[in-house]
Amino acid sequence: MSLDPKRTVAELKELRELTADENGAQRVAWTDVWLKARKWFAAKVQELPVEQHCDAAGNSWVTLPGESEKALLIGGHLDSVPNGGWLDGSLDELAGLEVLRRIAAEFRSRPPVTVRLVDWADEEGARFGRRLLGSSAFAGTHSIAADRNRADRDGVKLEEALRRCGVEIDKFPDAESEQKNAAAYLELHIEQGPVLERMGLPLGVVLGTKGVERHNITFHGQEAHSGSTPMNVRRDALAAAAKLALEIRTIAKKHQDAVCTMGSVKTFPGIVTAVVGRCEVTLDQRDLDAGVLAEMYREAQNASQRFAGEERCTVDWSRLWNIEPVPFHPQLLDLCDQAIRETSQAAHRMPSGPLHDAAEVARAGIPTVMMFVQSLGGISHNKIEDTREEHLEMSVVALDRLASKTMDWILKQR
Amino acid sequence: MSLDPKRTVAELKELRELTADENGAQRVAWTDVWLKARKWFAAKVQELPVEQHCDAAGNSWVTLPGESEKALLIGGHLDSVPNGGWLDGSLDELAGLEVLRRIAAEFRSRPPVTVRLVDWADEEGARFGRRLLGSSAFAGTHSIAADRNRADRDGVKLEEALRRCGVEIDKFPDAESEQKNAAAYLELHIEQGPVLERMGLPLGVVLGTKGVERHNITFHGQEAHSGSTPMNVRRDALAAAAKLALEIRTIAKKHQDAVCTMGSVKTFPGIVTAVVGRCEVTLDQRDLDAGVLAEMYREAQNASQRFAGEERCTVDWSRLWNIEPVPFHPQLLDLCDQAIRETSQAAHRMPSGPLHDAAEVARAGIPTVMMFVQSLGGISHNKIEDTREEHLEMSVVALDRLASKTMDWILKQR
Repeated sequence: MSLDPKRTVAELKELRELTADENGAQRVAWTDVWLKARKWFAAKVQELPVEQHCDAAGNSWVTLPGESEKALLIGGHLDSVPNGGWLDGSLDELAGLEVLRRIAAEFRSRPPVTVRLVDWADEEGARFGRRLLGSSAFAGTHSIAADRNRADRDGVKLEEALRRCGVEIDKFPDAESEQKNAAAYLELHIEQGPVLERMGLPLGVVLGTKGVERHNITFHGQEAHSGSTPMNVRRDALAAAAKLALEIRTIAKKHQDAVCTMGSVKTFPGIVTAVVGRCEVTLDQRDLDAGVLAEMYREAQNASQRFAGEERCTVDWSRLWNIEPVPFHPQLLDLCDQAIRETSQAAHRMPSGPLHDAAEVARAGIPTVMMFVQSLGGISHNKIEDTREEHLEMSVVALDRLASKTMDWILKQR
Repeated sequence: MSLDPKRTVAELKELRELTADENGAQRVAWTDVWLKARKWFAAKVQELPVEQHCDAAGNSWVTLPGESEKALLIGGHLDSVPNGGWLDGSLDELAGLEVLRRIAAEFRSRPPVTVRLVDWADEEGARFGRRLLGSSAFAGTHSIAADRNRADRDGVKLEEALRRCGVEIDKFPDAESEQKNAAAYLELHIEQGPVLERMGLPLGVVLGTKGVERHNITFHGQEAHSGSTPMNVRRDALAAAAKLALEIRTIAKKHQDAVCTMGSVKTFPGIVTAVVGRCEVTLDQRDLDAGVLAEMYREAQNASQRFAGEERCTVDWSRLWNIEPVPFHPQLLDLCDQAIRETSQAAHRMPSGPLHDAAEVARAGIPTVMMFVQSLGGISHNKIEDTREEHLEMSVVALDRLASKTMDWILKQR
């Protein structure tokens, strides 16, 4: 049985049929629809000579034992955001399944190295606001204390939702045992951005995931009546925020591939007849270089202070979240590049702005690389998320080639 | 019995005691607290030799008949915003009551001209979003069709709330009959702005109410992932809006006394990880000169188009509301100026940014003027709204002087 990329596309459609409604994919982690997707996947896997289990953090592992205990890991995630797309996460997992089938067939169920396919639990964090939940438990970077008391919109606690799926948050650290013998990790993903489409390339090598600085910034001015307050006596918090909204673009453009985004602006009291007394904004800054990221963060802070001063406002910052850049493994980058060039005309090397489970795996010290396939319109987390079928098929072929090269590479390691 | 300005201050405190809670005044029109305030006021009035009734729009009229049927009107409003201040509207009404007492006493209940004190219904529009409701019915500028179906937050219709207070919206046009014999209209009000305080003056002559152009402006860009979308391919609706937020200040500053305010900014999807795809803002522009107002409106429109173009966005405008400037009567302005100079060291002439019932009365063709008294910190519509008691007392004296001068002026008219 040889690799059948068309089967992957057919299975993606089958999964969509099973778990999407008119608004898109509904495979939100720890819900019934997600469990249904996992059950469907488990049935597919049963045809293979593999061992299958869930780890202590709810990650689902499928293991094809090889001559060596050293393991090649291939991963993805079946969970989606609410009203999500048909490819984000599930392409990775179903392409991985197809590669596993090919390897099982080629080596008569006994490949030279062990091959493991993992479905990470709760990559999206859509329900409880905590992304990469399963993979961070695997990597040992998860904090039980910080997450135990999270609750969803309906007040259901994370802890309770997990228990309903047979997962105890107190046992999360046990998931680290899955790291044993892991020699390399591969992940295919849709780009979720416009770069490859604009370059006319189907596939790209992912250099790593960008570090992120994410902050709430609040400008405090003075609420005042829009009719009775002369322009020259105002302390307009929106004016200071507007200056920052424009300045962060200048800051980002100094550095290739860096991005700065103000995604949310809230005005208080926020009515047509009042000068804005308080303005709360969010800032998201990303770069693959830790030095560049730190510099951009400092520049934005300085600019916010300057603008607050100009508008006779004050400003304060509170960090929402941050993560350091995670560069992928240099030798695996080269293998990924080769695999793409053998499949497509050219490969482009690019950082990933979005985070992925691969970043957690790399943080655990496991040699890691990701491959991107073009996203139409760069749109994701939306029911219109799409990729050309020929590109999907090419991505399965390229992942398969990368898997073979990586197995060879693993065997060459001491 | 001579004028007793200290009584006005005492009565303002009495009213506050009766109708405010720990969050401020709660005399929202068409509510029980408002009705309680009106009942309290009616009891005060009963000591005077006056006729008292409500017109078809719920405005409460107190009439002291004079030798001439020509009538001097003095007005205010007992209604407040929720969590409002103790002076906005009620100072006008209680100062008017004190002036009425003085006139009734001085002329042994038969002044040379008729004097009428009006408590306008629903100046604030706090519950149903329709300001100047009673005075616009009086002026004949009210549209029943536009207001009949308004509802409050709880879904109670304006029509039903009025009926509960004995007012039928279909009969609103009958309130115009109160215009009969009206020869002049006076209104004292707190400034609700910082101008007089900054000039160190207790009282000001109000030149008129500024015209207002009020619009919703929506910039349409493209929602995109904050991590995966390079800066140079973004269509960031917030960037266009931020440019406009800054530009309207430049537009306003070209003209003395003009103001432009962006009071509300809403970002969609409005999350930290997405470039803003749609940004909805409000614009409020005011000036006493209709030509200046029209020019500012045109300039803001042009600027919004330019910024939308620069950011590869589109923009559309929808008018929320507008009103032309309402200049007050030149001769009454002079009388007001004299009355203030006889009471205080100096008078300042200034436009009113906020609207007042006086604007509706002036639109009905009745000679009108307003007087402002200093507001501490320029703050209003808030429980901390305040004015020095000595200034409150001076304002009662100045209003009384203005009333005398205006009665003389009325008698001199053909």
